[in-house]
Amino acid sequence: MRKILIIGIGAGDPDFLTVQAINALNRVDVFFIPDKGEEKAALRHLRNNICDRFIRGRSYRTVEAPIPARRAAGDDYRGTVHDWHEEISRLYERFIMEELGDGKCGGALVWGDPALYDSTLRILDRLQRKGCAFDVEIIPGISAIQVLAARHRIALNTIGRPVLITTGRKLAADFSGDVDSVVVMLDGEQAFKRVQAEGVDIFWGAYLGTPDEILIAGKLSEVSGKIERIRREAREKHGWIMDTYLLRKTGGD
Amino acid sequence: MRKILIIGIGAGDPDFLTVQAINALNRVDVFFIPDKGEEKAALRHLRNNICDRFIRGRSYRTVEAPIPARRAAGDDYRGTVHDWHEEISRLYERFIMEELGDGKCGGALVWGDPALYDSTLRILDRLQRKGCAFDVEIIPGISAIQVLAARHRIALNTIGRPVLITTGRKLAADFSGDVDSVVVMLDGEQAFKRVQAEGVDIFWGAYLGTPDEILIAGKLSEVSGKIERIRREAREKHGWIMDTYLLRKTGGD
Repeated sequence: MRKILIIGIGAGDPDFLTVQAINALNRVDVFFIPDKGEEKAALRHLRNNICDRFIRGRSYRTVEAPIPARRAAGDDYRGTVHDWHEEISRLYERFIMEELGDGKCGGALVWGDPALYDSTLRILDRLQRKGCAFDVEIIPGISAIQVLAARHRIALNTIGRPVLITTGRKLAADFSGDVDSVVVMLDGEQAFKRVQAEGVDIFWGAYLGTPDEILIAGKLSEVSGKIERIRREAREKHGWIMDTYLLRKTGGD
Repeated sequence: MRKILIIGIGAGDPDFLTVQAINALNRVDVFFIPDKGEEKAALRHLRNNICDRFIRGRSYRTVEAPIPARRAAGDDYRGTVHDWHEEISRLYERFIMEELGDGKCGGALVWGDPALYDSTLRILDRLQRKGCAFDVEIIPGISAIQVLAARHRIALNTIGRPVLITTGRKLAADFSGDVDSVVVMLDGEQAFKRVQAEGVDIFWGAYLGTPDEILIAGKLSEVSGKIERIRREAREKHGWIMDTYLLRKTGGD
């Protein structure tokens, strides 16, 4: 039976690798490297560093596959994503059937944690349902939002209260009900600008866990413009950006 | 300047320790071990194993402090927690001032991730605001909900949708708005029994990451009773239980 390890490699800092992830790296015969184009040279370099540093005394192969761009979502976000996953799943199928011998172990490296806003698991699940036979094992990793909290020295929740994790696309303009802490991932359009800023604090971080890390925190009404400017400048300088943030009603604890 | 490292040691399996956490363990001169009583022998054993296994070539001390029981919350949950934190902060203050020499490094080990439903950070923050001078550094760890997702081989979110992380106490009977995935932590009373079970799946796990791990998944209407029974039996057998679960509207992906 073929096996695929989906390995969470944490967000940014190679020191976020767990012992379990290091052991998993050392079981992999062939790594599947989806080349999304959007993953810039800096990230590719970081990933290669992780393999060089942690894989010991064994040889491994890597197979790169160019991932097609997702077409603009328009009105049908889920449908667009489904079609895109269908395309990508064919690349994984080819990888598993053609590159991975029977009884061999394949590996997919996932930034952060495979459990949050990553499609690898969903794509492999789709393949298994189509009858492609392989086992999957998942190795959790430190996600960017955990790094965000650690670097700002805050908890994600206030005492006994919930935390909503959402995307820029789904961020509501207002806090609702019991929710006083909202974490936003995958926000390409600075959705915090749409939020009623009065009485809200923001804890923002970019390039978390890397030497280029930037942290800004403060009242949303006061630092919103600063974040927008610094984000734009950093993106121009580096050619890419990954950022995330926590919005919290002021006064919670 | 004294330094306190708050080290997330992951949920259950010592292999969840990150390289960063292992390096942090090896910087600590004195560990502060809050003895909550509720932390049973099995957990204490696991924690000692982590120190024995990962701390190399240096000596360290441990200082145990019996944490007072929190009085029943009644109507004022936050107030009760505040009073309790005030008591605990005095124990930390004594630790820092009496057990930790100037320039020395103290350590607090936190199950899972310090950013989720853990009070260590909040208590130390309270001490700093009172003028107690020390630096704090936070090391994120793999939380139980990440292990839950990995073991059930699922993502916490469906495509592009939010995830609400909440407690048993705050779990609503219904899903609201865009939220189709709700993770429940700290649930001593099986709050899933209060949820409208029709059209909801549950992914439940106890003793996650340990050899005693139990996983149950299915339609909430079909497995709710089974989870309740197995949870009760396991708790009787082990004398304690830690569990968490994801509730998801059926049909999401």
